[in-house]
Amino acid sequence: MRDVAIIGVSQTKFGELWDISFRDMIVEAGMGSLKDANIEGKDLEAMYVGNMSAGLFVQQEHISSLIADHTGLVPIPCARVEAACASGGLALRNGIIAVASGYHDFVIAAGVEKMTDVVDPTPAIATASDQEWEAQQGVTFPSLYAMIAQRHMYEYGTTREQLAMFSVVNHKNGAKNPLAQFPFEVTVEQVLKSSTVADPLTLLDCSPISDGAAAIVLCPADMAKKYTDTPVYVKASTQASGTIALHDRKNLTTIDATVNAARNAYDMAGVGPKDIDAVEVHDCFSINGILAIEDLGFVEKGKGGVAVEEGMTELDGDLPVNPSGGLKSRGHPLGATGIAQAVEMVWQLRGEAGKRQIAGTEIGMTHNIGGTGGTAAVHILSV
Amino acid sequence: MRDVAIIGVSQTKFGELWDISFRDMIVEAGMGSLKDANIEGKDLEAMYVGNMSAGLFVQQEHISSLIADHTGLVPIPCARVEAACASGGLALRNGIIAVASGYHDFVIAAGVEKMTDVVDPTPAIATASDQEWEAQQGVTFPSLYAMIAQRHMYEYGTTREQLAMFSVVNHKNGAKNPLAQFPFEVTVEQVLKSSTVADPLTLLDCSPISDGAAAIVLCPADMAKKYTDTPVYVKASTQASGTIALHDRKNLTTIDATVNAARNAYDMAGVGPKDIDAVEVHDCFSINGILAIEDLGFVEKGKGGVAVEEGMTELDGDLPVNPSGGLKSRGHPLGATGIAQAVEMVWQLRGEAGKRQIAGTEIGMTHNIGGTGGTAAVHILSV
Repeated sequence: MRDVAIIGVSQTKFGELWDISFRDMIVEAGMGSLKDANIEGKDLEAMYVGNMSAGLFVQQEHISSLIADHTGLVPIPCARVEAACASGGLALRNGIIAVASGYHDFVIAAGVEKMTDVVDPTPAIATASDQEWEAQQGVTFPSLYAMIAQRHMYEYGTTREQLAMFSVVNHKNGAKNPLAQFPFEVTVEQVLKSSTVADPLTLLDCSPISDGAAAIVLCPADMAKKYTDTPVYVKASTQASGTIALHDRKNLTTIDATVNAARNAYDMAGVGPKDIDAVEVHDCFSINGILAIEDLGFVEKGKGGVAVEEGMTELDGDLPVNPSGGLKSRGHPLGATGIAQAVEMVWQLRGEAGKRQIAGTEIGMTHNIGGTGGTAAVHILSV
Repeated sequence: MRDVAIIGVSQTKFGELWDISFRDMIVEAGMGSLKDANIEGKDLEAMYVGNMSAGLFVQQEHISSLIADHTGLVPIPCARVEAACASGGLALRNGIIAVASGYHDFVIAAGVEKMTDVVDPTPAIATASDQEWEAQQGVTFPSLYAMIAQRHMYEYGTTREQLAMFSVVNHKNGAKNPLAQFPFEVTVEQVLKSSTVADPLTLLDCSPISDGAAAIVLCPADMAKKYTDTPVYVKASTQASGTIALHDRKNLTTIDATVNAARNAYDMAGVGPKDIDAVEVHDCFSINGILAIEDLGFVEKGKGGVAVEEGMTELDGDLPVNPSGGLKSRGHPLGATGIAQAVEMVWQLRGEAGKRQIAGTEIGMTHNIGGTGGTAAVHILSV
C-alpha cells in the first residue's frame, strides 16, 4: 500500500450561490485545486466526487460524466460516491485508496452540492434517514437530532447553554473565514432566542442549506515534494457504518460509527486523541458536535458540553474544534462538507489559515457523518 | 498493486419484483454471493454498491448505510458508487481497487435497482443525460439512441433487420437463463412489428424497466484457492469518461468512452480482441450492442450489423455476445447490470452456465455504459 499526500486544495465560497450553477461550482473548486497543486488537467488520472443528491436537488444523476466533461477532463475516469452527508469523506477515502493501490498517481477528490435550486430541500435531505421507518413517517433530521439532544441532556446533565456554546464557538471561528456562509459572531443569548426548530434545538443550533464545492489533489507521498514545499500526508483514512434508523441503536447518545472509525484511524496512524492538534467535526446540529468530541475520544462520554463551556474547543483551547467555522458557520453543502473539512485542515497544517490559524498544528483530524451516524468517515492528516 | 480474484457470485431473478423490496433484493444477492464464496459476513471488510437512483426511484439516498444495516454487516464500510447505468461497473472497479490497494481483503461489489415502484420511471432515467441540454428539452434515452441508430444506418448501411437480429440473439440466449426477466425467444418479424418507441427503434429493441440485484465477492488472488476450486481472476478493470451530451460528440456512431476503456483494458491484461472468448456488452438498445462490438475492437467500425446478421455473436459463433440474454432479455435494473454482466462471465468461466454454456471459455469481457456513453467500464476476467 503506497503512502498518499495532499498537494493541492481549493474551496468555493459556501452560501446561497444564485449566480453559479452546479456544474460551474465544481469547475471552480477543481481548477483551484489543480492550480494550488502546480499541476495541469492533463496530469490528472482519475476523479472521485462526493455528492449526496444531485438527482433530487438538480435532477441530474451521472454527475461523474458531467464533471469530467464540463471540466474538460474527458476521458479520465470519474466516480461519484455517496453516503448522504458523508459523501465528501467517502470521496476523499476512495481517492486515497485509488492512489494507494497504484491504479492512479494523480487523483482529485472533490465534493459538491447545490441545495438552493429547490423550493423545499427537506424531502431530499430526509432521504438520508430510513425511508420506510423514519422519513415516510414524517421524521426530519432536526427532530432526530433533537431526540438525541434531549437524551444527552437527560443522561448527562448537558445544558441548553452548552449546546448553544458550540454554535457560538463555531461562529467565532467562521467570522475569520472569508469562504464561510455566515462569517459573523453570535451570542449564547441569540442562539437561545432564535426560532425553535425541534425542541431543544433552535435555528442557530442548525447548520444551513448551502451551495458549494471543494477539491483536493492527491498523489503518492514520495512524489509530493516535486510539486509543493508543504505536502500534507494522509496518516489514516477510515470509514464505518452504523444502523441507518435511530430506533435500532443501543443508545441515542453514542454514535458507534464515529467510535469505530476513530478507533481504526488511531490504529492506522499510530496516534491517540492526545496527539491531535486540531479537529474538524461534523456539527450538522450543535448536539452532534458535542457527541463527536466524546465519540472521537477527546473527552469522556457525557463531558462534551462541559468541555465546550470551559473553552477547550476554542481556537486557543486545548483542542481547537472547527477552526473553519464548522458546518454551522462555514455552511453545509452536503457532499462538499467532508472535502471542505480536509481543505481547512490542510490550510491549518500548512500555516495558511489566516486569522483563524492555530499555531503549531502538526496533526489534524476530520470527522464526517452521514444521516444520524449511519456512516462516519475519519481522516488523520499531518505535516 | 495486488492481483484480485472473484470467489463468489450471485444474482436475483430480474423482473418486475412486486413482492420483494429494495432492501430485501440486495440482501438476497449479497448473502447468495457469500454462500457461493464459502465465507461468512464476519469475514467481510467492505462493500461497494452500484446504484443509479434510489433517491428518485424509492426516495432513499444513503443506501450504503441501509445495506450495511439491513444485511447485518454494521460496522464495515459500505460505499455507493454511481455513474448512471454504469454504476455496477464502477462498484466492481472500486471494489477491485480496494482489494488491490491492501486496504481490504474481502470485499463485496454489488449492484441494485428497484425501478418499478414509481408510476413513470422515465424522468428518473433521463437524469443520466445532460439535464440542461437534453433532459429538460424533452429528450429521452430511446430518442438519443434512435438518433445514433439513424446515423449508423445512414453512414454504414446498417439495416433495420440487423438491429432486430441483435435482440433476437439476446432473447435466444436469455431463453436459457432462468434468472432472465424475459426468458423467451423472439423473431425478427416480431421485433419489427412491435410498437415504435423512437424510430427506428421498436419496443423489442429496448431493454426493459427492471428490478434486481447482483453481488460478487472479491479477495486477493493469492488467497482465492483457499475458498474455491474455481477462482476467476481480474485481468483488467478500466473506466473512461465521454461527453455526457450527445451533441458534443465528434460523431454519433463511436462511443469514445468504450474505445478508451477497452484500449486500456487490453493493455492492462496484455491481450487483444482476438483473445476474448465471450463478452457481455451493454445493449440498453439494440444499436448500442452493435456499437459495442465495433468499439471494443471485435469488428471494424460499421461492420457490427453484418457481423450480427452473419451469426458471429451467437452462442456457437466466433464471438458469443451476451450469453446471459443481455440487457434486453435478462433485464436492466440499472445499477445491478454491470455486476450481473460479471456474474454471468464468472459462470461462463467456471463452466456453470447451464444450457447457455459456451464451451472452453477462458477469457471473458464485460462492458458497461452510463447514459449514451458518458461513462464506460470494461473488465477482463480469466480462469
